[in-house]
Amino acid sequence: MTDIFKIPASEIDNRIARIQNRLQEAGMDALLVLQRVDLFYFSGTAQNGFLFIPADGPPLLLVRKYLPRARRESAIRNIIEIRSPKEVPGRIADFYGRLPRALGFEWDVMPVNEFAFYQSLFPEQRCVDGSRLILKTRMIKSHWELLQMEKTARISSRIFEYIRNTIRPGYTEMEFGGIYEAFARKIGHAGRIRVRDYQTEGYPWHILSGVSGGMVGLLDSPASGQGTSAAFPVGAGAKKLRPDEPIMIDLATVFNGFHMDETRMFAIGSMPKEALDASLAIIHIHNEVLDHVKPGVPIKDLFHIAQAGAEKRGYADPYLGPPEYKVQFIGHGIGLELIEQPILSVKETTLLEPGMTFALEPKMVFKNRFSAGAESVFTVTETGHRLISQVPVEVFVC
Amino acid sequence: MTDIFKIPASEIDNRIARIQNRLQEAGMDALLVLQRVDLFYFSGTAQNGFLFIPADGPPLLLVRKYLPRARRESAIRNIIEIRSPKEVPGRIADFYGRLPRALGFEWDVMPVNEFAFYQSLFPEQRCVDGSRLILKTRMIKSHWELLQMEKTARISSRIFEYIRNTIRPGYTEMEFGGIYEAFARKIGHAGRIRVRDYQTEGYPWHILSGVSGGMVGLLDSPASGQGTSAAFPVGAGAKKLRPDEPIMIDLATVFNGFHMDETRMFAIGSMPKEALDASLAIIHIHNEVLDHVKPGVPIKDLFHIAQAGAEKRGYADPYLGPPEYKVQFIGHGIGLELIEQPILSVKETTLLEPGMTFALEPKMVFKNRFSAGAESVFTVTETGHRLISQVPVEVFVC
Repeated sequence: MTDIFKIPASEIDNRIARIQNRLQEAGMDALLVLQRVDLFYFSGTAQNGFLFIPADGPPLLLVRKYLPRARRESAIRNIIEIRSPKEVPGRIADFYGRLPRALGFEWDVMPVNEFAFYQSLFPEQRCVDGSRLILKTRMIKSHWELLQMEKTARISSRIFEYIRNTIRPGYTEMEFGGIYEAFARKIGHAGRIRVRDYQTEGYPWHILSGVSGGMVGLLDSPASGQGTSAAFPVGAGAKKLRPDEPIMIDLATVFNGFHMDETRMFAIGSMPKEALDASLAIIHIHNEVLDHVKPGVPIKDLFHIAQAGAEKRGYADPYLGPPEYKVQFIGHGIGLELIEQPILSVKETTLLEPGMTFALEPKMVFKNRFSAGAESVFTVTETGHRLISQVPVEVFVC
Repeated sequence: MTDIFKIPASEIDNRIARIQNRLQEAGMDALLVLQRVDLFYFSGTAQNGFLFIPADGPPLLLVRKYLPRARRESAIRNIIEIRSPKEVPGRIADFYGRLPRALGFEWDVMPVNEFAFYQSLFPEQRCVDGSRLILKTRMIKSHWELLQMEKTARISSRIFEYIRNTIRPGYTEMEFGGIYEAFARKIGHAGRIRVRDYQTEGYPWHILSGVSGGMVGLLDSPASGQGTSAAFPVGAGAKKLRPDEPIMIDLATVFNGFHMDETRMFAIGSMPKEALDASLAIIHIHNEVLDHVKPGVPIKDLFHIAQAGAEKRGYADPYLGPPEYKVQFIGHGIGLELIEQPILSVKETTLLEPGMTFALEPKMVFKNRFSAGAESVFTVTETGHRLISQVPVEVFVC
């Protein structure tokens, strides 16, 4: 029952200092953070409340519910209790002696109606978008954060091992998802995958077997799968796993809030040659991209390296989805949310920096037939890259 | 692999007609629906796209990805493909010969930045909030929808039976959650619980055993539990289930998009008298509320009936949470999302109407000791209520 996991004060101080630099650069006087993951990132607690971060000076954590737990979890020094959000402006004015002029909010996630409410609480303030500053700050992972992600990677690696040992014909995709998730929960998987965008689906049961892998759908991903119904038309469905077919498992794992996102190809018995060739090609592409990772490289270069790798191997057609539905990225940042900045997209000109941490996921879709993919999490180091993922990068024929 | 589940055309037509009435009453010329569940409700497909609903005339479904699946799933007659949201205004103008003046958006879920984007696409339109009209339309369930919810209720009932047969000491809360969810997925549970509000947590593993049930936390619920870490500090945690302690399991189930939300008290071996008395009292309160359900009753009356029931039995103190943290509701609408309108709250003056469908969940929290609760889903009929839930309303000593 003890909370052994806690974000250290040094981490919190460093994050606050970095966002304060960004606030000053942007001419913003303060941020009011309330989205749960952002709040956890900057304060160490995800309780119901607000973190007010001035461009200069100490932050103030205002907790609606539940103060004792927030105090235990958070390294923020100034923590007070409020009964209603309506108290926020008054309590800030009391603590700092004044209110900020330009106040940032999380415009990328905060709904229009909710923002109107907060704007009404701060009628004299210029309420602006603070989300870009937050996302940029979260983009660079610290040594401590990478250690946490390695813990998640160990759990994920054990789940993949379990999958290798238990996969067998006859299970439906969803049934098998439930089986390995039961094991996953037992060893620490927290179940709920955090995604920032309200329309993005995040879940650990993205199992696309055989023809399911050939199904294009709503996801901004090369293949969506069958899903369980028109209401949730993505990921695992009612199709049974069969011997001798390619099975793509894209597993999202979360432990203490830190995510892993890894994809491997499986087959029971044997994998048909065409699928095996494609699966090996995608591993080569995955590895070629990693070989080119180092600080200073424009992110879009990685996209083009992967593209060239697919073309030279004759896979231009299925690569990143069928011709009319190709996605424009090969991976994404990852951390306290499954998908973070930057995106490894065709148009991203940002340069790689040490500490940026990505899920790299080149994939191919052979429409109405199957998918092939490989995905690992890596971080950018001073000289190149380091894999955080611990799952062997190979095709698993079980 | 066949999609046997489909929302019938008659349902879609009826929903469109009802929202069109509301649009006309509100003087709104059209709605642009894009949130996934709303889109599914009004079109039958949850693919990536937009449903344009004029106040009068046929709706138009614009699909980004993936058109063939949207066509299979949707009973909407006019379906076209678009490559980018930027095409939406032009395609609407082409189809209808003009653009609406007042256009409604889902302001309760659409982030500020996303709304700014759509507003830029419709510079001449008056963009307004359409979410209230949507939520009110969804509030009343049809005969067909209730049949779907009964299917979910059957699955949920089997999961509760499985829980009764498999619960035992030594499992951690989260481990046991994984075990029963594996069974649940096998018989149709779709895994992902839909909640509308971006800060609300929805998941099927709300298992609060013994002291976990006494833990107040961030949830707008009497108890939050321990959770797996500060990053997800609600629901099941690492505490092991023990004999002779009260265990509250609040199970959310979803099948074909339709949710159930049901709570029962369990004990392994025996339940301590104080917890058993409280558990039976909460069942009596639950039943008393049901006895008062009929069309025309103001919703807040149900809240007060429950309150009086708790007081007369001497439970004023733990009822709905410890004194300083009491919640102000005893249940909520339920359907394609776990929490829908109306809320069974102290201040809700709306009158009960046939077809309104609720999860009724009176609970008590004995701080730092345990929770007691009972929860069932019912619908309002012409003369009273009908339980949709099929789980026996009793305490399960296993």
